Amino acid sequence: MPEFHEECGILGVFSPKTGAVAQDAYLGLCALQHRGQESCGIAINDEGLIRLHTDLGLVSEVMTPQALEALGEGSMAVGHVRYGTDDSRSRINTQPIMVSHRKGRLALANNGSLVNYSQLRDQFEDEGFIFHSTSDAEVISCVITRERLTSGSTEEAISRAMDVLVGSYTLVAMSAKKLIAIRGPMGLRPLCIGQKEDGSYVVVSETCALDVMGARFIRDIEPGEIVIFTREGVRSDRRHCREMKQSLCVFEYIYFARPDSVIDGVSVHEARVRAGAFLAKEHPVEADLVVGVPDSGIDGAIGYARGSGIPYGLGFIKSKYIGRTFINPVQGQRKAGVHIKLNPLAAVVSGKRVVLVDDSIVRGTTSKEIVRLLRKAGATQVHMRVTSPPFMHPCYYGTDIKSKDSLIACQHSLEEIRQIIGADTLGYLSHENVRKIAAPIDETRFCTACFDGNYPTQAPQASQRDKYTKRLMRIGEMA
Amino acid sequence: MPEFHEECGILGVFSPKTGAVAQDAYLGLCALQHRGQESCGIAINDEGLIRLHTDLGLVSEVMTPQALEALGEGSMAVGHVRYGTDDSRSRINTQPIMVSHRKGRLALANNGSLVNYSQLRDQFEDEGFIFHSTSDAEVISCVITRERLTSGSTEEAISRAMDVLVGSYTLVAMSAKKLIAIRGPMGLRPLCIGQKEDGSYVVVSETCALDVMGARFIRDIEPGEIVIFTREGVRSDRRHCREMKQSLCVFEYIYFARPDSVIDGVSVHEARVRAGAFLAKEHPVEADLVVGVPDSGIDGAIGYARGSGIPYGLGFIKSKYIGRTFINPVQGQRKAGVHIKLNPLAAVVSGKRVVLVDDSIVRGTTSKEIVRLLRKAGATQVHMRVTSPPFMHPCYYGTDIKSKDSLIACQHSLEEIRQIIGADTLGYLSHENVRKIAAPIDETRFCTACFDGNYPTQAPQASQRDKYTKRLMRIGEMA
Amino acid sequence: MPEFHEECGILGVFSPKTGAVAQDAYLGLCALQHRGQESCGIAINDEGLIRLHTDLGLVSEVMTPQALEALGEGSMAVGHVRYGTDDSRSRINTQPIMVSHRKGRLALANNGSLVNYSQLRDQFEDEGFIFHSTSDAEVISCVITRERLTSGSTEEAISRAMDVLVGSYTLVAMSAKKLIAIRGPMGLRPLCIGQKEDGSYVVVSETCALDVMGARFIRDIEPGEIVIFTREGVRSDRRHCREMKQSLCVFEYIYFARPDSVIDGVSVHEARVRAGAFLAKEHPVEADLVVGVPDSGIDGAIGYARGSGIPYGLGFIKSKYIGRTFINPVQGQRKAGVHIKLNPLAAVVSGKRVVLVDDSIVRGTTSKEIVRLLRKAGATQVHMRVTSPPFMHPCYYGTDIKSKDSLIACQHSLEEIRQIIGADTLGYLSHENVRKIAAPIDETRFCTACFDGNYPTQAPQASQRDKYTKRLMRIGEMA
Amino acid sequence: MPEFHEECGILGVFSPKTGAVAQDAYLGLCALQHRGQESCGIAINDEGLIRLHTDLGLVSEVMTPQALEALGEGSMAVGHVRYGTDDSRSRINTQPIMVSHRKGRLALANNGSLVNYSQLRDQFEDEGFIFHSTSDAEVISCVITRERLTSGSTEEAISRAMDVLVGSYTLVAMSAKKLIAIRGPMGLRPLCIGQKEDGSYVVVSETCALDVMGARFIRDIEPGEIVIFTREGVRSDRRHCREMKQSLCVFEYIYFARPDSVIDGVSVHEARVRAGAFLAKEHPVEADLVVGVPDSGIDGAIGYARGSGIPYGLGFIKSKYIGRTFINPVQGQRKAGVHIKLNPLAAVVSGKRVVLVDDSIVRGTTSKEIVRLLRKAGATQVHMRVTSPPFMHPCYYGTDIKSKDSLIACQHSLEEIRQIIGADTLGYLSHENVRKIAAPIDETRFCTACFDGNYPTQAPQASQRDKYTKRLMRIGEMA
Repeated sequence: MPEFHEECGILGVFSPKTGAVAQDAYLGLCALQHRGQESCGIAINDEGLIRLHTDLGLVSEVMTPQALEALGEGSMAVGHVRYGTDDSRSRINTQPIMVSHRKGRLALANNGSLVNYSQLRDQFEDEGFIFHSTSDAEVISCVITRERLTSGSTEEAISRAMDVLVGSYTLVAMSAKKLIAIRGPMGLRPLCIGQKEDGSYVVVSETCALDVMGARFIRDIEPGEIVIFTREGVRSDRRHCREMKQSLCVFEYIYFARPDSVIDGVSVHEARVRAGAFLAKEHPVEADLVVGVPDSGIDGAIGYARGSGIPYGLGFIKSKYIGRTFINPVQGQRKAGVHIKLNPLAAVVSGKRVVLVDDSIVRGTTSKEIVRLLRKAGATQVHMRVTSPPFMHPCYYGTDIKSKDSLIACQHSLEEIRQIIGADTLGYLSHENVRKIAAPIDETRFCTACFDGNYPTQAPQASQRDKYTKRLMRIGEMA
Repeated sequence: MPEFHEECGILGVFSPKTGAVAQDAYLGLCALQHRGQESCGIAINDEGLIRLHTDLGLVSEVMTPQALEALGEGSMAVGHVRYGTDDSRSRINTQPIMVSHRKGRLALANNGSLVNYSQLRDQFEDEGFIFHSTSDAEVISCVITRERLTSGSTEEAISRAMDVLVGSYTLVAMSAKKLIAIRGPMGLRPLCIGQKEDGSYVVVSETCALDVMGARFIRDIEPGEIVIFTREGVRSDRRHCREMKQSLCVFEYIYFARPDSVIDGVSVHEARVRAGAFLAKEHPVEADLVVGVPDSGIDGAIGYARGSGIPYGLGFIKSKYIGRTFINPVQGQRKAGVHIKLNPLAAVVSGKRVVLVDDSIVRGTTSKEIVRLLRKAGATQVHMRVTSPPFMHPCYYGTDIKSKDSLIACQHSLEEIRQIIGADTLGYLSHENVRKIAAPIDETRFCTACFDGNYPTQAPQASQRDKYTKRLMRIGEMA
Repeated sequence: MPEFHEECGILGVFSPKTGAVAQDAYLGLCALQHRGQESCGIAINDEGLIRLHTDLGLVSEVMTPQALEALGEGSMAVGHVRYGTDDSRSRINTQPIMVSHRKGRLALANNGSLVNYSQLRDQFEDEGFIFHSTSDAEVISCVITRERLTSGSTEEAISRAMDVLVGSYTLVAMSAKKLIAIRGPMGLRPLCIGQKEDGSYVVVSETCALDVMGARFIRDIEPGEIVIFTREGVRSDRRHCREMKQSLCVFEYIYFARPDSVIDGVSVHEARVRAGAFLAKEHPVEADLVVGVPDSGIDGAIGYARGSGIPYGLGFIKSKYIGRTFINPVQGQRKAGVHIKLNPLAAVVSGKRVVLVDDSIVRGTTSKEIVRLLRKAGATQVHMRVTSPPFMHPCYYGTDIKSKDSLIACQHSLEEIRQIIGADTLGYLSHENVRKIAAPIDETRFCTACFDGNYPTQAPQASQRDKYTKRLMRIGEMA
Repeated sequence: MPEFHEECGILGVFSPKTGAVAQDAYLGLCALQHRGQESCGIAINDEGLIRLHTDLGLVSEVMTPQALEALGEGSMAVGHVRYGTDDSRSRINTQPIMVSHRKGRLALANNGSLVNYSQLRDQFEDEGFIFHSTSDAEVISCVITRERLTSGSTEEAISRAMDVLVGSYTLVAMSAKKLIAIRGPMGLRPLCIGQKEDGSYVVVSETCALDVMGARFIRDIEPGEIVIFTREGVRSDRRHCREMKQSLCVFEYIYFARPDSVIDGVSVHEARVRAGAFLAKEHPVEADLVVGVPDSGIDGAIGYARGSGIPYGLGFIKSKYIGRTFINPVQGQRKAGVHIKLNPLAAVVSGKRVVLVDDSIVRGTTSKEIVRLLRKAGATQVHMRVTSPPFMHPCYYGTDIKSKDSLIACQHSLEEIRQIIGADTLGYLSHENVRKIAAPIDETRFCTACFDGNYPTQAPQASQRDKYTKRLMRIGEMA
């Protein structure tokens, strides 16, 4: 059902002593699974030897007891979950990437997307480099390891590499003796530090992973900051901080992150409740009930109810058993796809004027079906409210909406969209208020390019990565 | 996490013409999956030839596109999902059961548990019968087919069989030309009829399956009623109706059924909300927030909030990705099991006095962990409220609590339980009010034996089935 | 490539003390795998509790370390491998069958096929019995357990059951305290006894299994004999011996059995060599080389070479890696099927006049392809010699040739067959000599019905089993 | 059972028009499976787009119908099978390798092992290159693509690359428009060209693959030759021919290759027969029977029989059903491992003085067990004859004997070995004659380093590859 995807979640563990860091990474990746469900991987560092296991599949599928046992004990770990777009669904693109180079070895996990990927790769190919994948992580590894040839340390090489990387990147890197966490200067994707009772440091994309790992939140990593964990202690290199305007992704609050996470000091759940409350002011309506589309519209619905005084209600029952393996057997016109996952609670909505809250409308097909189901269950009116502005522009920073083709808001007016989805009224959150949902973060610090087209960087060349993808293709691995 | 299980869900389809009845059954079973996750099966009737596919696994795992294609088209279908207790986890016990007999063939799916299983099986063995499984369905098949030898029709044989079956049973049977639905005279388990737009009749354990199958609810089947679907039309045999006191299982409303189902005219969701409201009156407390344990405590929490005036809030985020395959890697003292599935929303509960609502406490281990997590997330007080009375007596009618050993309420006083789970206060729903949650159903019509020990039938001989199970064992099938 | 199949192999282990009988059974079944590759199973007896594991697949696939561990230790075991014809390829027909009855429990493995299956099943259905499968083993279990009601012992019940069973059957039965081996009165299929150094008795279809199990051959079981193994010792019931004319299956020597087995005192390898030598006398030819079709024609070729004085040579290399999972990718006219498994040794056959020896010609398609390959590899002449007479009549006693439709010798004259397969000359072993290949066994003791139509019993009603199979069908299990 | 392994087989297809080249490659790889059973892969070229599928497993397991369909049609293909030593058993080391570089793309399959791997990799790392695997193919790709930066064509780049590659290598390379086959200047591993009736060219390690692919043998590729297939025709670059002394691996004839292959003009089968005949002269013995250890000792036994006049006989029956998945369940002292695969034919060997021929003795454990089994089956004497000299020195050119530790001949005298394996006499082929088995190839053209230590190149630094392997490890993929 989701129509829009974050591409990755990352994680690092640095323990003062050898132990079950793979298990820690496993628990953390389970909590980050919503950021990417296609592939995952864990690399651990056992006295300088790096062992890696990655594969296509959910964390609980890939990280079997046998795999965890084979990873063994260590003192550091890097983990990754990945969504993966159609053109890169292959084992070769799984992460962490693990490479060997002149000065040693490097494991690397990235969340983000470079806009100068093509330029960088071309430069390396000019020098005779070969590439095995189409992942940013491979190019970033090349940049870092080349800088490492002439740098005194991995962190110095990373700092120099950041001079040439343009776009969104958030990294956890591991060398023989160090774990290094980097949040790109724009700060598009979140990254924070926690600590376990045994003194281990943990770096994760979202705080919900800290909770599950049993770690206490220490602080967010600053945009542009490099944090180096060694046996001697934790150091920070802030020379790239504030060299660019910060561009925190507002969609992390709207949809990507888990509601139980706190990003840059702001609760995701509270941001969504606030978005719902703003919507109630912007698009009031006379109604009997506010319901949210599970799971991402629930918080917004609570906010709309709070803002409007209309009672909040449980509108849908979501099946727990329909996973990725579900194959819709119905060939005809009836859409079993949404209904089998989501059934309206007729006892609640029947005879009611319903406000339906969701986080976004991407293609509109799911919204249309949900509105239809609500009416069939007896809702007399359905007022659709969306906790973000219309999605009008592709995202170049690590999500899977890379062209305008599939965006309903690019093709249709508000009134047309309302008709297509079959709602009585339709209201989107305003551009003004979407920047305020994560207050007290200053509203100028956000990237809202998907709504307004104001990109914080140059755009990448159109379909830059296609030229590589179209040359080589790995297949058959999902069979 | 669930500590208490319904054992089965059943389903039948009768179509006026040959078509994709297997697909219909598949969708319906997906919607009934919460009633049994261990094995499932579909039998279809293609012009008198019965084809069957059953296996261990979820519906979406067992009913692959290849399996559905092999089942092919037909005009009738019988479907089953099963929980399965430890001593019967084997392919041989999957249903529907499909047998060949003197007068033809029979496919049968059952939800329930006979208390005279042992007596009946002994009688058959005295006549030289052999048994392949330990399922009630095999014994019921023997009773029906033996009666069929001297009966003019399958429905007549079934009616005579009902004279000897004692206990809980709810059946969908299929012969070469007929689909027959039977709800046992006590009515312990639900069964209802729906109809699709193309005229097909559908029989299902719960109405949520009708929604997903695109069928309109027609009516509940009466306790004791036999409904016969043939090409000539639908007939009803009510001679067994009202021959026994009805004993509807109140736990269907409290926990087993899906909230979006309506059983015997009463919405499951509304019954749970009502239970929560009763609790608010019986066990009031001064607090800031009411939260429910996902998923089964949510409705009760809404009811408690409504009854008490204390605001309802989203207390937990539940991971969508932790399924049956999850293996807890943590060996030490920390319990990752609950936490990885359920994370408290600190932003919501921190600093609050929280009322925590759940449907039942069986062993108490989960409740204890949830209370601990709430406190860790900052709740200043945790008041546990349970939307059912203490669970004190085993159930003999098709669930998996067959002895008192694992029931915390049998071993400990209320105060001891409160201390064990670590709550500030603890309140259970009263025996009086639990019978009123499904009003306007008359309160005398319920079975509440698990709370008060008033069984509507004789108890089965202690561990009657064990004597068979202990003789033969099939193994290795989950490997 | 094989065109004709034995249907089963059976095995029993009786140990004086509890131990790894499942492992013994596993090794023995591996050695009997050539008798059936579709499904297999092992039942063990652990102090009266019978545990069973059966599934579709090879022994090495089904009997995983986990499965063997779950079977655990015991003092008796019954094992089975099965070929399975198209209409019965299903888990429900796997063996050993394990049932519970009035006087206890029974595990049963059968090699053979009843000709009065239909009559027996009809009788039981008249009494109200239900049937889950279409296997003889289920009907035989019913006969035995019914007789057991009024018999003092399982062996007495079996002896009485033998009064009503007509056709081919060879059984290993296991009750709580006994292991019982039965060879049907006609003796169609082999069965013999061995003993291990630790005193365990072993019953197997072929002696090659004794070798692998580390057991010493004791003796063949007589046609009609019942051998009872108990803690008190080994007893024999011979009341059914010699009540019928013996009808040993000559095809066991020609093709079914492994050459390293010795059946009823005669080496299978030597019988095949003798068949080849007879052929050399019956159908001499001037040639340079004798080669055999691997694997079953090798022994015959050695015999032909010895009988004719023409040198024996290695004619083909057989791929070790093309198993059941091989799927021929070639869609066009070229037949990769045979060639990928069997490549002629051009260095050996090129420029030579070759005598090609095989055990039988069933449909003729494989022979045609092999002749073509030999010519392509440079053979100047190909003289086909077959170590059995033309296959003209269906077999009712436990193989998979049940109609004349697929038998080339029923449709074509000798000369036509020669032309079809493209050989220069073609010679079959005579009816007279085929009865002499297993000398000193008296030639009147063999069943040669497949060559001459002289069946030792009534023929079964045409497609008797079809009427049951066509009513019920289990599907999807190979998916 | 095999104790010594070839590491790879390679293959290329060049078709004048787009078609089922993946299917051709599949058939050919099935025929080359004996050269490597651990992983395999096929890359096809569809109008310049290269699609690849590789995985761990046999060809028939990895190349499923779905995988072949996904590979689709094309006009060129490269295929590979690989044995893989313990330290490199990982998906990352599967081949063909497929990379993208400045001038385009390259798929590459290699059979061999560089002795200057370490030096080359160090040079590249000095330039900042990163490495993902420990395979020669990755280093060779780097060498070729770097040369390609300044070369006018891929073949020119390859020719220049050959100036720096030292050791054994045999390559099939594919660029957007060309298929290029290279046999290293020493000619250690075989490579030849065939042609199908439709005009397609085929390059394969062994001629047996041509047979199965339906291709006619054209010629062997010369040591040092580069053959370029393009739409314009076939060209040959011989500038590296004869720049080194040829060093054809004599073990290809003794054991690695299939007997139905012809390498450099000499039939492998005939070479083995000749080796057996030499042995009969060198180590005569009075005996009744010559038998070979299946499969690789069969040809030698035929030769010994021919040379000695002692009759050849079938000594063993080999199970067809014991594959790689077989797990020996026996924990105790008895060795079921060999016996379950190989059973002596007692009818043949009993009471006989037996000459037992095998191709080599590596560790001696298998030979010991086979001698024991022969005696148990009744052989009165066992005279072991080996169709190669004692294996004394590790092989650096693409096999898996990389140290002396596991070589029985390094640790023990001839007499000690005889005692260990329990033979009455023991005879190895002489150093002199082993060079003559493939006559008329001149005896100076062979590499016999494993027997005499005369390596045709420098030895690699001890465990050179270990230093890379020990830094990074991929795991869990066989789970």
